[in-house]
Amino acid sequence: MENRISFKNDYSEGAHPAILSLLMDTNFNQEPGYGEDSLSKAAKDKIREALGKSEAEIFFVAGGTQANLLLISHLLKPYESVIAADTGHIEVHETGAIEYTGHKINLVKNIAGKLTVQGIDDVVSLHTDHHMVKPKLVYLSQTTELGTVYKKQEIKEIADYCKSNNLFLYVDGARLGVALTSPYNDLSLADLAELTDAFYIGATKNGGLLGEALVFNRPELAEGFPYTLKQRGALMAKGRLLGAQFLALFSDNLYFQLAEHANTQAMRLAKAFEAKGYAFASQPESNQLFPILPVELIERLQQDFEFYVWEKRSSEEAVVRLVTSWATDPKDVEKCMLTL
Amino acid sequence: MENRISFKNDYSEGAHPAILSLLMDTNFNQEPGYGEDSLSKAAKDKIREALGKSEAEIFFVAGGTQANLLLISHLLKPYESVIAADTGHIEVHETGAIEYTGHKINLVKNIAGKLTVQGIDDVVSLHTDHHMVKPKLVYLSQTTELGTVYKKQEIKEIADYCKSNNLFLYVDGARLGVALTSPYNDLSLADLAELTDAFYIGATKNGGLLGEALVFNRPELAEGFPYTLKQRGALMAKGRLLGAQFLALFSDNLYFQLAEHANTQAMRLAKAFEAKGYAFASQPESNQLFPILPVELIERLQQDFEFYVWEKRSSEEAVVRLVTSWATDPKDVEKCMLTL
Amino acid sequence: MENRISFKNDYSEGAHPAILSLLMDTNFNQEPGYGEDSLSKAAKDKIREALGKSEAEIFFVAGGTQANLLLISHLLKPYESVIAADTGHIEVHETGAIEYTGHKINLVKNIAGKLTVQGIDDVVSLHTDHHMVKPKLVYLSQTTELGTVYKKQEIKEIADYCKSNNLFLYVDGARLGVALTSPYNDLSLADLAELTDAFYIGATKNGGLLGEALVFNRPELAEGFPYTLKQRGALMAKGRLLGAQFLALFSDNLYFQLAEHANTQAMRLAKAFEAKGYAFASQPESNQLFPILPVELIERLQQDFEFYVWEKRSSEEAVVRLVTSWATDPKDVEKCMLTL
Amino acid sequence: MENRISFKNDYSEGAHPAILSLLMDTNFNQEPGYGEDSLSKAAKDKIREALGKSEAEIFFVAGGTQANLLLISHLLKPYESVIAADTGHIEVHETGAIEYTGHKINLVKNIAGKLTVQGIDDVVSLHTDHHMVKPKLVYLSQTTELGTVYKKQEIKEIADYCKSNNLFLYVDGARLGVALTSPYNDLSLADLAELTDAFYIGATKNGGLLGEALVFNRPELAEGFPYTLKQRGALMAKGRLLGAQFLALFSDNLYFQLAEHANTQAMRLAKAFEAKGYAFASQPESNQLFPILPVELIERLQQDFEFYVWEKRSSEEAVVRLVTSWATDPKDVEKCMLTL
Repeated sequence: MENRISFKNDYSEGAHPAILSLLMDTNFNQEPGYGEDSLSKAAKDKIREALGKSEAEIFFVAGGTQANLLLISHLLKPYESVIAADTGHIEVHETGAIEYTGHKINLVKNIAGKLTVQGIDDVVSLHTDHHMVKPKLVYLSQTTELGTVYKKQEIKEIADYCKSNNLFLYVDGARLGVALTSPYNDLSLADLAELTDAFYIGATKNGGLLGEALVFNRPELAEGFPYTLKQRGALMAKGRLLGAQFLALFSDNLYFQLAEHANTQAMRLAKAFEAKGYAFASQPESNQLFPILPVELIERLQQDFEFYVWEKRSSEEAVVRLVTSWATDPKDVEKCMLTL
Repeated sequence: MENRISFKNDYSEGAHPAILSLLMDTNFNQEPGYGEDSLSKAAKDKIREALGKSEAEIFFVAGGTQANLLLISHLLKPYESVIAADTGHIEVHETGAIEYTGHKINLVKNIAGKLTVQGIDDVVSLHTDHHMVKPKLVYLSQTTELGTVYKKQEIKEIADYCKSNNLFLYVDGARLGVALTSPYNDLSLADLAELTDAFYIGATKNGGLLGEALVFNRPELAEGFPYTLKQRGALMAKGRLLGAQFLALFSDNLYFQLAEHANTQAMRLAKAFEAKGYAFASQPESNQLFPILPVELIERLQQDFEFYVWEKRSSEEAVVRLVTSWATDPKDVEKCMLTL
Repeated sequence: MENRISFKNDYSEGAHPAILSLLMDTNFNQEPGYGEDSLSKAAKDKIREALGKSEAEIFFVAGGTQANLLLISHLLKPYESVIAADTGHIEVHETGAIEYTGHKINLVKNIAGKLTVQGIDDVVSLHTDHHMVKPKLVYLSQTTELGTVYKKQEIKEIADYCKSNNLFLYVDGARLGVALTSPYNDLSLADLAELTDAFYIGATKNGGLLGEALVFNRPELAEGFPYTLKQRGALMAKGRLLGAQFLALFSDNLYFQLAEHANTQAMRLAKAFEAKGYAFASQPESNQLFPILPVELIERLQQDFEFYVWEKRSSEEAVVRLVTSWATDPKDVEKCMLTL
Repeated sequence: MENRISFKNDYSEGAHPAILSLLMDTNFNQEPGYGEDSLSKAAKDKIREALGKSEAEIFFVAGGTQANLLLISHLLKPYESVIAADTGHIEVHETGAIEYTGHKINLVKNIAGKLTVQGIDDVVSLHTDHHMVKPKLVYLSQTTELGTVYKKQEIKEIADYCKSNNLFLYVDGARLGVALTSPYNDLSLADLAELTDAFYIGATKNGGLLGEALVFNRPELAEGFPYTLKQRGALMAKGRLLGAQFLALFSDNLYFQLAEHANTQAMRLAKAFEAKGYAFASQPESNQLFPILPVELIERLQQDFEFYVWEKRSSEEAVVRLVTSWATDPKDVEKCMLTL
């Protein structure tokens, strides 16, 4: 086994102990299957409360790719397409999962990992008749795949454009926790519920064993969704397992505390890099850092730490990615800082 | 919450404590994601050992419908079809998951929940040219959806037919544990690995929180399967969660002990029904019982127990389904027996 | 080349000369592509007039399997299914085309090739929750695959059931011409437009080179259909070719005259079989005949005629299928009659 | 009806008279259906002869989008992708037909409408594991969508790269005729058969009523293709209609003569534009011209001619597209030239 400390991602550890405790405590209760259990029901109530949206429809699924493909293929007709940034997770890192459900992704060149209204409008304007797909859903990730955070105004402008142009707006929240607790953030969970048609709240990357909570802000869009879940193999028999993750995470503000911890550790690291004069390929705004480092330093860091070398810049420099999480030990961050 | 004792299914409780302990003990180990963790690797080794088949390729997925749709759509060309019993789980209770992947299911009238060589051959003989689908994979469930158990000779005959006719043979093992430990069973896990192309070993219904282990007995059939997993949203980030289920279950014979417990409790109940003179719609061979009961008795049982009324037979009689599990308390069985 | 006279099917010859003439006469007119040509427009007007339904939306496609898969996959959500007779063309002879689009077919045992309300209701009643597909569209063929003809009352009962149960009713009219001109028919084209949601009018089997006219009786159901056509490769560049078929066929009552000819020749043959004492596997009501004949007679007929041996009944008897068409020469029928 | 002369596309007229004559002459021959007719067989033999490849497997389909989606989805596994230029027809103008069959298109920035080995290699290098699709087929169009023509050496380099990297090479030949007879061409039909895995020969845009001939140069790749044809609704009952197009076109060198005519007329026009000092957005190499014209001239031309305004360049200039065809009257070209 690997002895180095891993900053490779935010899913290297198991779950926050509160989740394991809840699983233990409720283990021998007999519960109905397929999401009808009392834990899932209580968890959904907690989330609706946090959203300030009692009519929201919520479904728990196992992972992010699953959440994306289920939501998108549920909402679109076969000839309708998705608009996404060229850095979007669905474009690059989901093995064509969206295309497998039959839908094209129309790409927009990202700016700092983000979509812009201009970029979306360029796609919409280009698609004029039935010889082309019909763009119908805008997909964005919060935080973005580059660790940046959309400001409320940016999302509002996109949301306004979507409303005017009869497009759905859907937010991939694999890392929604660190977005909402980022020092750069000015958006609330309630804002998100107001501005979008649907989004998901990621637990896998914020302390859960697994689980993403798909939220339909307009309940009519969720019609038939249990069929979609079952048909794609996403309806878990012991739904209690998913319910327990979110019940624990949405009790006592735990979800936000864990994300804040990840951000705090990332910012400590970021400042250390800055202090040494290193630039970033993408501004550090959440738990993913993309410093541009000399090869010599990279090799030195690799002796004690695991992380991805993201992109070679020259024979002397490369961008690396370092990720902190709810489970990052502040002492490990310190150790890393001292190595710089 | 429900106060009655549930005999509705075999997934009402959480997980066997050994699994939860293993999760706790390994919780803060940093592990690689997506099934590359040490728990999954160890679990696969344990299973390969139990199969006596070191070359078998094994993948862990979250549930049974997922296992079925992944395996079938991975192996078949678009115009190839599945042969299944009309009682097959993929036909009735998976919301058209197989058809969603593009494949037709050709039905065979079941006999005691089972396929027969004759029934399979009827389908094969009917499909003669490219105006019809091309049958290519035989799907059967062990135990069957009616709780019956294929004998070794029955599976061997089907396997021989498949080999002669260039068909894949795939076994849905959602309840493989209770099949292999049924008093009626004469088939070993090693036999199954020898006779079939692929099958899955179900944990969800035998003590796991989730998880089915898909086994490719011919490793060449697994080529590209990690792509299939990811594309359908079935590749779990924290694969350790799945690995832990199977590592615990395949340590110290636990998987078989749990299944044997379920069968023992079912047989106790079955004998009690028989002693009272009640017949069964399907012979009791594993943990699912289908007694034919008078309405009066059903109503009496419903006061203290939950179970499905499976099929009305007349205004006075109905078939019910009672299911025991690894977690069934022998005292609850006793209480039920005393109610008869 | 074959010298025998073919009664194998109703698409052995090219097209009625009026169609070829129209193609010649308009050949060098410059026309817009993709169905926007003046021939297609005129043809649609003619059909709308024949239907008495000015709001009907009409699209021309190349063949029957194409028509079925386009219509069904356009109207259904992924988890919705089709109800069809077990003899339905989509079930048996379209290589799983409907399943390829993701939809399950729920089968009803046919009675004389037909669906019944009882059979449909059995399927609907069985499907109660999201663990099963949701039946949503009833598919029937007029004439049926056995050559029989639904009476107006039969279709009305099915239509009423569909309306009450929120199901679409769609009619495969590959052989609609011979249905509407059958001596057993009491249904008009206008009735069909009134009672169903959509249907198609087949030209391939009634004098066209190719072509089926898909009719949406409720225009709102056709929304987005041009996208569906293009996406599946069914939007023909030179739509004039399809338009010309229907413009010629729906001028001067030609479509009905051709079908009537086919029926007349079939009835002559049918009476000759009856006169010789032969029974039919399916009552002769249109241009497909299924007499049960002694092997000796079959072999004698095969010396001069081509036809399918449909089903062996014993070592001495078999059902054969003989099909007449718009192009059948009455003298060839006579020759056949004399061979009996 | 439109009185202006159309240079909008190469499918404005019907068919070359030789095709209509052949249809007339063979109209009442009884032929087997579904491509088994004698016309289709003779046409395939003619094409095989022209290819110098007796083992090639050939199938006729109705149109180009259909040809593309059939071929690509037949050859690829679900997680495999297509590499195409960003100007490729499948990317822009086929309503997501490839994605509907489940496959992603990986884009390469075009150079003069063409793919380059460098661009292809960039895509291949980027896709390293099962979290991404697996690029498997290179798609290019000859002529390109910008009217340019790949030189033999260019295709050879791409073919070599494909062979080394285990990729299929497939050529969209919607306008293969004008490519092979372009003054810039140095590639033969036999070269194409040697260098690629599959391609199609377009008839719709070169004198046919409809029809594209899909050629599998490696016959083993065609295994099961009749199933694919039928399943997607592409197997025409009266295959003779398709056979007749290619039998006529591949007799007496007609296919090449028609294409040469289109090119000749295009080059006359091109020279006239050049003589007046107008530049082209894409070098004129075949029957599609993209001159950059002042708005005033565009408006003057529009009084007598129809054509697409392709792309606004400024308030004073735009790119237009003019297309000639087998049916273009040289006098109409003259009239256009005089308008300049």
